[in-house]
Amino acid sequence: MTFQRISRVLLTALLLALTFNAARAEVRTEAVRYQDGDTVLQGHLTWDDRYQGKRPGIVVVHEWWGLNDYAKRRAEMLAELGYVAFAVDMYGVGKNTEHGDQAKTWMQQITANIDTWQRRALLGVDILRKHALVDEARTAAIGYCFGGATVMQMAYAGADLRGVVSFHGSLPPASEAQAKNIKASVLVAHGSADGFIPAERVAAFQAALDKAGVDWEMVVYGGARHGFTNPDAGKFGIDGLAYDATADARSWERMQEFLGEIFE
Amino acid sequence: MTFQRISRVLLTALLLALTFNAARAEVRTEAVRYQDGDTVLQGHLTWDDRYQGKRPGIVVVHEWWGLNDYAKRRAEMLAELGYVAFAVDMYGVGKNTEHGDQAKTWMQQITANIDTWQRRALLGVDILRKHALVDEARTAAIGYCFGGATVMQMAYAGADLRGVVSFHGSLPPASEAQAKNIKASVLVAHGSADGFIPAERVAAFQAALDKAGVDWEMVVYGGARHGFTNPDAGKFGIDGLAYDATADARSWERMQEFLGEIFE
Repeated sequence: MTFQRISRVLLTALLLALTFNAARAEVRTEAVRYQDGDTVLQGHLTWDDRYQGKRPGIVVVHEWWGLNDYAKRRAEMLAELGYVAFAVDMYGVGKNTEHGDQAKTWMQQITANIDTWQRRALLGVDILRKHALVDEARTAAIGYCFGGATVMQMAYAGADLRGVVSFHGSLPPASEAQAKNIKASVLVAHGSADGFIPAERVAAFQAALDKAGVDWEMVVYGGARHGFTNPDAGKFGIDGLAYDATADARSWERMQEFLGEIFE
Repeated sequence: MTFQRISRVLLTALLLALTFNAARAEVRTEAVRYQDGDTVLQGHLTWDDRYQGKRPGIVVVHEWWGLNDYAKRRAEMLAELGYVAFAVDMYGVGKNTEHGDQAKTWMQQITANIDTWQRRALLGVDILRKHALVDEARTAAIGYCFGGATVMQMAYAGADLRGVVSFHGSLPPASEAQAKNIKASVLVAHGSADGFIPAERVAAFQAALDKAGVDWEMVVYGGARHGFTNPDAGKFGIDGLAYDATADARSWERMQEFLGEIFE
């Protein structure tokens, strides 16, 4: 960029910023009830009233613990960045836990059937796209752990998302048919020391995307373990789960760039 | 960031930009002769006179073709970004080629002996650090292909670099002793379809860094092949070499962020 162009951009940005100069973040949140058959789900919708008008929308899918404060916090961080964010519920109202056995049970109930898994995930995308503040041509999904696998399932189902971002997701390899469905660009944040995901799985995941010519990028963070984006990762008493501040900061930054790229 | 902070940053940036408003890039270049024993080398030093004072310095190491226009161009791009850049010569004055056999011969003459390889690479770092415009506390090295392996050798030799960046480098795995020497942060840009580097090598490369607790990140670009940053990659008639505009743009952007991070 030439300096002339930079200064024009900066001048515009400055004027806009001055307009908002007195405005701090005005994050609003809303519980949204929806149903998947007989199962009542409750998601957490959020946006920032400091911004005006329609904006891109982003689905946030929780870790295997269920829709908890961590997922809601990530959605609110996205709201502050200028997006509408919808932290979906993949388990059912109030179903979140700190116990690994319970989390595993709920997760496996969903993942056991791909159609169920995809259908419930897509319900959340649908709600987001229909929201008055969302520019439905510009939507994406991010997910953590089980949520990272879930956003891949959205892509495998051919969801109309510009991009999906998996943070220490379990990287389910796509079947050939699934890979062909993918419309979204894919960004994966993966810890090199993530003991939950064998190297063969990572390789198979990548190979399936390559075979279908998908636009994808995987960032491997050296030394980072499973759950590396969650400051509370170490408190669950599960070996192999640990926070990594550097990987967290870098992956969140990369995600922001990626969102800027896919939404331009 | 609050809007107050954003507008202060923008105001400062705007004032700086307006100061340079009339200034276009003023890239200067200088051929620098140096010697490695009896071998006369000639590197390409470059900086942008639009900036004032000392600035971080970056070594650029060429592909196996030798110091050619591509490496010089990358150095000049770094100069425009505000760095002093030194495109080193790993072969000897005038030694660059478009023939794979010749490139391979020259490359193997250097890589056959690790001590030779590292010594010659470090000569280039030394020249950069001693330059009047360089803040010697803030230096880094980037390299392409053979050059990517070379910057890793600099790190393995314990060079005082804040960071090294390998673009489609051959990823030589560090020995335990080499890995322990590393002071630099490591950024690797790798094409998922790079047929020159087997998966086992990539894994060994990563494992060696993990074992030593090195700060590293590897970005894998889906579908990108060897040489993906070079627009001329496909013209050499070598199977498996191909330009990838998306991977090029993303890896250059990531490098810039990384440099900002390590130099702050």
